[in-house]
Amino acid sequence: MAKWIWKFGECEIYHSLMLHDRRQQYGYPEPVVWKMYAPEPVVVFQKKVTTEGGVFHIRACGHISTTVQTGQAPWEVKKYGGRTEILLEAGTATVQIRVSNLKTFPCLYVDGIIESDESWEADDLSMNFAPVGVSSLFTDKEKTPELFPFSYQPISYIKKEKLEKGVLFDYGKETFAAVRLFHLTGKTVRVNFGESRQEALDDEWSVIHFVREPKEGELSYAPCAFRYLYVSDESAEVEAQYEYLPLEYKGSFRCEDELVNRVWSVAAYTFHLNSREFFLDGIKRDRWVWSADAYQSLFVNRYLFFDPEIEKRTLIALGGKAPFKRHINTIMDYTFFWIMGIMEYYRTYGDRKFVRQMLPQMKEVMAFCESRESADGFMREKPGDWIFIDWAPMDKEGALCGEQILYARALECYGDLWEMALSEEGTQPGEMQPREAVPEQTAETAMAMDTDMAMDAGMGIKIAKVYRQKARRLYELIQERFYDKEKEVFIDSYESGRRNVTRHSNILAYLFLPCSEKQKKDIYEKVILNEEVRQITTPYFKFYENQVHCLEGNAELLEESIRSYYGSMLETGATTLYEEYDPSMTGVEHYAMYGNPYEKSLCHAWSASPIYLLGAFRLGVQNTGVAYETFDVRPNPGDLKSFDGKVPVPGGAVRVCVNEKEIRVCSDIPGGTLWVQGKAFRLEAGKETVVKNC
Amino acid sequence: MAKWIWKFGECEIYHSLMLHDRRQQYGYPEPVVWKMYAPEPVVVFQKKVTTEGGVFHIRACGHISTTVQTGQAPWEVKKYGGRTEILLEAGTATVQIRVSNLKTFPCLYVDGIIESDESWEADDLSMNFAPVGVSSLFTDKEKTPELFPFSYQPISYIKKEKLEKGVLFDYGKETFAAVRLFHLTGKTVRVNFGESRQEALDDEWSVIHFVREPKEGELSYAPCAFRYLYVSDESAEVEAQYEYLPLEYKGSFRCEDELVNRVWSVAAYTFHLNSREFFLDGIKRDRWVWSADAYQSLFVNRYLFFDPEIEKRTLIALGGKAPFKRHINTIMDYTFFWIMGIMEYYRTYGDRKFVRQMLPQMKEVMAFCESRESADGFMREKPGDWIFIDWAPMDKEGALCGEQILYARALECYGDLWEMALSEEGTQPGEMQPREAVPEQTAETAMAMDTDMAMDAGMGIKIAKVYRQKARRLYELIQERFYDKEKEVFIDSYESGRRNVTRHSNILAYLFLPCSEKQKKDIYEKVILNEEVRQITTPYFKFYENQVHCLEGNAELLEESIRSYYGSMLETGATTLYEEYDPSMTGVEHYAMYGNPYEKSLCHAWSASPIYLLGAFRLGVQNTGVAYETFDVRPNPGDLKSFDGKVPVPGGAVRVCVNEKEIRVCSDIPGGTLWVQGKAFRLEAGKETVVKNC
Repeated sequence: MAKWIWKFGECEIYHSLMLHDRRQQYGYPEPVVWKMYAPEPVVVFQKKVTTEGGVFHIRACGHISTTVQTGQAPWEVKKYGGRTEILLEAGTATVQIRVSNLKTFPCLYVDGIIESDESWEADDLSMNFAPVGVSSLFTDKEKTPELFPFSYQPISYIKKEKLEKGVLFDYGKETFAAVRLFHLTGKTVRVNFGESRQEALDDEWSVIHFVREPKEGELSYAPCAFRYLYVSDESAEVEAQYEYLPLEYKGSFRCEDELVNRVWSVAAYTFHLNSREFFLDGIKRDRWVWSADAYQSLFVNRYLFFDPEIEKRTLIALGGKAPFKRHINTIMDYTFFWIMGIMEYYRTYGDRKFVRQMLPQMKEVMAFCESRESADGFMREKPGDWIFIDWAPMDKEGALCGEQILYARALECYGDLWEMALSEEGTQPGEMQPREAVPEQTAETAMAMDTDMAMDAGMGIKIAKVYRQKARRLYELIQERFYDKEKEVFIDSYESGRRNVTRHSNILAYLFLPCSEKQKKDIYEKVILNEEVRQITTPYFKFYENQVHCLEGNAELLEESIRSYYGSMLETGATTLYEEYDPSMTGVEHYAMYGNPYEKSLCHAWSASPIYLLGAFRLGVQNTGVAYETFDVRPNPGDLKSFDGKVPVPGGAVRVCVNEKEIRVCSDIPGGTLWVQGKAFRLEAGKETVVKNC
Repeated sequence: MAKWIWKFGECEIYHSLMLHDRRQQYGYPEPVVWKMYAPEPVVVFQKKVTTEGGVFHIRACGHISTTVQTGQAPWEVKKYGGRTEILLEAGTATVQIRVSNLKTFPCLYVDGIIESDESWEADDLSMNFAPVGVSSLFTDKEKTPELFPFSYQPISYIKKEKLEKGVLFDYGKETFAAVRLFHLTGKTVRVNFGESRQEALDDEWSVIHFVREPKEGELSYAPCAFRYLYVSDESAEVEAQYEYLPLEYKGSFRCEDELVNRVWSVAAYTFHLNSREFFLDGIKRDRWVWSADAYQSLFVNRYLFFDPEIEKRTLIALGGKAPFKRHINTIMDYTFFWIMGIMEYYRTYGDRKFVRQMLPQMKEVMAFCESRESADGFMREKPGDWIFIDWAPMDKEGALCGEQILYARALECYGDLWEMALSEEGTQPGEMQPREAVPEQTAETAMAMDTDMAMDAGMGIKIAKVYRQKARRLYELIQERFYDKEKEVFIDSYESGRRNVTRHSNILAYLFLPCSEKQKKDIYEKVILNEEVRQITTPYFKFYENQVHCLEGNAELLEESIRSYYGSMLETGATTLYEEYDPSMTGVEHYAMYGNPYEKSLCHAWSASPIYLLGAFRLGVQNTGVAYETFDVRPNPGDLKSFDGKVPVPGGAVRVCVNEKEIRVCSDIPGGTLWVQGKAFRLEAGKETVVKNC
């Protein structure tokens, strides 16, 4: 089937560029604060075809020029210039179509005797032909990939309130919509979009507001986020079109506690609003793509939409292009999460082809990281680096523990991905199975191979070996330098002398560093359960802390945390989940952040983690292999009496029903193992397994 | 004075992109065939300023966001978002203005208490702040650098001819103009632009033609080249606006031979038509920027416009951006000419700052070249390389002699440029004056230094040493492998066994390889004067061959060649000089090239070389140092009796008047030496020197 094709990555780079240029702040567009990459303006597409002859048609975004080469010699080429209907003679020929597009990006649709699809290659005239990019979103000839195919639905306000100088529309819940105002009478009209009523009524501090002159009594606005809409014109009427990506809700969760159910639903809606061209951080304020936010979104997506397309788009957009000269989002940890995210993608979908297509940019990014290593292999701050980890005080002097853990993990993932991407058969990434002896390599010599690199399985194994060794060396060095033998936990910095202990360093060690069981136990008891260690305040890091609770089997904490944190957030009137929440605050205090009264995002993707946590640790469905070739189902009621839900898996779903009497599990695919009280039950595809719950 | 600023190179990259996308061919736009680079979409501009306080105004192409940092701490920064009028407090502050522009390129104009100029820096958010780009063309606040500031002048046809189905307008000479048709009555109207009458009347093969539907009897066309205009509508009327760059004709040449004078004038006009945003190859067909054509244009420009701005623009556009993965214009020799061209620019204008700004891209390009060297240091064809040298048969098997000569020369220039760009004081490039001992370096270690390279004079000297050594080794190897001791000249290929001798390899050796006097004499006698060696047929390579004639003092050949080649070209009705010319052809044969009837360019920059040759070898003015700190005047009448002309130099011109009795020279600047019959006369600035001509 014919589909739109482009040079791999360019469609995402283009839409990322557009997306990052749409931020509005206090009446002005606000340019993005990190490096953006432009699409290649000229791309040549090619395919060697053998046909019985016939006509093909070309549709492109941009100017085209076509050649058909039927032999090796220069005169065996026919030039068709910009013609869009070409008669191909019977036989074998290489069709090349050059496309230039200075406004959006070059893309191509060919149908007839030959068709454009993933079997084509593209090159930016650098002689680096590689398989093209395609997407299931762009198969319709009439709909070019230049326009992202959102769906639209008219929505109505639930309340219209006349105020002294204007009108306030309340849409009942946070939404993202294109707004058209009409029946306007004022010469200039102010519109404030507000996530809260107070924001909408604040002329100065509503983050998104416009003052414009209506034309024929009308004004239209590109889609943005709001619940409330203030218009400084008493006669204003409004139409709004909800803009969204029509993603299927494949995961579900219901239990007897309606508050938990509500949190799940609101989390799902929050996540949906932020799942667009890419995984966004929040739907109002910057609407940008942040790598570590996106990393968490991979996990939520896996338990809700199970949509590989948005994961791929996000990973491509984050990775950028060569030359890569600054950390993703300028944040060191975010570069490492990007590499780890590609591994998560691979584990979930088993999509070797995508990883292969990502290898060149991964190599670029890793070369950047390695060029910034200190002599001891640690990553220390260099000019332009933002050492983040979390919005929390920690001791960032010298090498920071969390950064080193994530870097070591990224190195390991990087090595594994090389092997996986280039291997012919299914092998588990990271498995240290015996392999043929390979010559000792340093990372540097591996990188130096790149000019004439043979992209074969042998090369993958070699590079994997180099980077796994490097990761191991770093894991050992982290243990040596950051593990405090007296405190029996990890410290932020060994260079400052302060030996400061935070939850952050220890949670990251627990989850990503090879730790002994004793170390894990110590971390849990001496840090996580230790109220004297400063609490995590962001849902961002709660995502990781909650995983530790769940992995430690601390079954009740999850619901407790959901009820107290999210439940009380809902009580403030939240219709989507906030970026951050402090139950001790009241009223308008909830909306302030970054020093401004309404800069907090009231609809933030990272707060959707209950979707993941309930799916992975209550329904208990977890991939244990690649693409769910094997998976575990470990239902754990926590403090719930009964629940019922679905976790999507490749080609179907796993349904898990738990009540006080029995556990019923039905999987559409084979490979599953149900664990109840330490006993394993093999799940057969399509057949319900029922085990007594005692 | 405030002026527009941009990230260095981006303005040229943008206009190059636009320019290369304007080709029209047989009714369709024709995308460029080599790698194009896109501008950075987001750039941050900054300057540390100290003021007494006051307001500044911002104008930008794109969205802006401004911050003013008054101290080191995060809270010592004020954010102004998109505001365009900002009050700066007294004191010292770093002003940063971020600009995003997805349509053209980010550029900025600031005036008021602070002003944008070359003292600002820019960065594409990669932490590579470097001095901005500016241009004398873009100092007017109202005229953004997005639009290239051409001049316009209405021009009229000299003849209107009613034909059976339409009208033919003859503008009397080749021009480049925006055309507006009116009084059209047809539903669709065909327009053929023709450099020749025949081309304009050929519906199928006129290279630039359009079939369009008039709106209200009118049609307009973006500027293109033509002398004749055919319109398929008998009632058509036309208005045309000549579009040109208002360059001053600073050089001149007149002699008693009116044919030579006419050739000079037509060459000047030909060259002017091709001197636009950049040096173009020809004004009709592709209007693209070709490196080796541009290299020759540097020499012509020096004797006509002496405009450094167009040279800089051209060199920037050709060099492209990182990652650099394919030769300039895909042609190996053209990459080498680019580096040599930067040296020519430096020698002519002594502009260290420009060379410094070019260093990062020069390094990128050189790293590409070095990555493609064979083990012996020679450059052999790799996939995607076009080994050109000239449109002429030569033995291209294995390493080609001409490519190695140019590569070695490029290596030497590269080394010299590093030293010159980073040196504090004026030293002659390439001079091997005693220097402090530096550690032995290989090119590889020099390249490896780049991460934390200290851009100081010491580094320049180190790199220069490495590359000069490398060039010397290659010069020696070329002598060893390509010099045929029996034939006593250079052969194209030593690997094929054919030992083929061409003018090309020997001319390049004569001009660019350190050769002994005997070798030069042999080359001249055994190759250049040897009628059995296939003649040069392109004006492109005649440029080099004529230099050899002149350097060998073969005084009459130049005028002979001008009269016979260009003189007979003018007799065919040429109003500008052709890309190629064969006196044995007749009529429409003159217009065919590349297998198509009118694809020859009838207005081609490389044919303007008489401007250079008459200036350098008749008026005899030649720069012998940097920026004419020293220069020679060696008038040589050739077969002329008298001539009078001007050669522009920095800050003025040198006027040379020769008749049978005396030679009169007057220079506006010091540093000149007049040579007559082997005797040197020192020229004083502003004072005429008269020497008897005997």
